Amino acid sequence: MPLDPAADIVITGFGHVPKFAQGVVRDLRLRWALEEIGRPYRVELLDAMAPKPDDYCQWQPFGQVPAFDDGKVRMFESGAILLYLGEQDERLLPRDEALRWQAVTWLIAALNSVEPSLMQIVSLDVFQAREPWAKEARPGAVGFARSRLSCLADALGDREWLAGPFTIADIMMVTVLRHLRHTDIIAGFPGLAAYQARGEARPAFQQALADQMSGFAVPAD
Amino acid sequence: MPLDPAADIVITGFGHVPKFAQGVVRDLRLRWALEEIGRPYRVELLDAMAPKPDDYCQWQPFGQVPAFDDGKVRMFESGAILLYLGEQDERLLPRDEALRWQAVTWLIAALNSVEPSLMQIVSLDVFQAREPWAKEARPGAVGFARSRLSCLADALGDREWLAGPFTIADIMMVTVLRHLRHTDIIAGFPGLAAYQARGEARPAFQQALADQMSGFAVPAD
Repeated sequence: MPLDPAADIVITGFGHVPKFAQGVVRDLRLRWALEEIGRPYRVELLDAMAPKPDDYCQWQPFGQVPAFDDGKVRMFESGAILLYLGEQDERLLPRDEALRWQAVTWLIAALNSVEPSLMQIVSLDVFQAREPWAKEARPGAVGFARSRLSCLADALGDREWLAGPFTIADIMMVTVLRHLRHTDIIAGFPGLAAYQARGEARPAFQQALADQMSGFAVPAD
Repeated sequence: MPLDPAADIVITGFGHVPKFAQGVVRDLRLRWALEEIGRPYRVELLDAMAPKPDDYCQWQPFGQVPAFDDGKVRMFESGAILLYLGEQDERLLPRDEALRWQAVTWLIAALNSVEPSLMQIVSLDVFQAREPWAKEARPGAVGFARSRLSCLADALGDREWLAGPFTIADIMMVTVLRHLRHTDIIAGFPGLAAYQARGEARPAFQQALADQMSGFAVPAD
C-alpha cells in the first residue's frame, strides 16, 4: 500500500478541483508509477482554486501539481519525475538501451506532440466555453488532434505498449489520452481506445485513481 | 566542424520552410547541442511542404523533424534526443544528481509548461491568421503565455542558466522562447530577453543557426 504518511517521497496534489478535472490531475501519473513499483509516498494537498502558499513557487514555479521531493532531489513536471523514477526501477524503464530510449522518446512525444493538441480541445470546451469564438475554433482543433492521434494509432499498431514492455511512456500517454474523456474522439481510433483501456485496467492505475479521487474534499460541483 | 558527410550521427531537417519558420525548426536544438560538444553529424533534408517519404513514418511517426540515428539508437522528439546526448557528455548534462535532475525538470518544463502556450500564439498569428476568430482569441492566448513567462522569469531570477551550469535545459528553453521572435512579448521580460540573448550569443548556437539557414533551398518567400 504505497500511500503512507511516513514515506520519504512526498508529492503535491489538489484537495479540490472542478468535476471535469477529477481523475486527470497530473499527480495521477506519479501515483500510478509508484503503485506499479510498490514505493510508499505521501501527498500534500493544495487548493487548486486558491492562491498557492508563498513558498510553493520555489518548489513548483508555475504553481501547478505535482511537485516531488524524496529527500534527495526536489523536482517538478510529471514527465521529469517519471524519468527519475524510471531510472530507479526497470519495471518502469527498461535497462536495455534501445528499449529505454524508445520509452523516453514516446514519453516526450506524449508531452509535446500529443498532449498540447488534446489540451487545446479541453481549453475550448471548458476554459473558453463561453467565448463567442470557441465554437468556430473547435473544428480546426479537433482536426489537428485527430491527425496526431492517427499517427499515434499507426505507430502503436497492434502492439500492447508503446516501447515493448509497459513503461513510463504508457503511463504518460494513457493519462494524456484521458484528457478527451468528455468527447468521443478517442473512440474513433479503436486501437487507441483499447490501448487506453488496457492501461486503465492495470491494478496500479485503479489504486492510484481511487486514491486521487478520495483526496477531493468536495465530490463534485 | 561538426557538419560532416561521413558522420555516424544523422539527423533530419527541412530543405525548405516558409520564412517565419526559418531559424526555429527544431533540428536547430540538436545542431546546437552537437556543436557544444564538437560531435560530427550529417543532415538528411526533407521537404516540409511535400508528403514525407513512405518509410519516414517508421522513423518519425508524426512526420516532423528532427529524427535521429547514430547507428545505436533510432529516436525522434528533440527533447528525448537532447536527453540522450546529454547523458553522454557532462557539458550538456551535469553528472551531479541534484543539478542533473534540475536540468531534466527544466527541459520538460520548456516542452510542456512553456512551449505549448507560446505555440498557441504562433498558431493564431501564422497558421490561423485568416480565421475570423483568430483576432478575438489572441488576447487570452497572450495573457496565458505572459503568465507562464512571468513564472519563468521569477524562477530564473538573475541566474545565468536554468540549472546552474549551461545544460540541455537552456538549449530547449532558449529555442522555445525564439518562437515569439515576431512579437515584443519576450522583451516585456528583460531578464528572459537577456537570457535568450546569452544563449544565442554562444558560438555553438551561432554555428548551428548558420548551418541550418544555409540548408534552406529558397532563402525567403
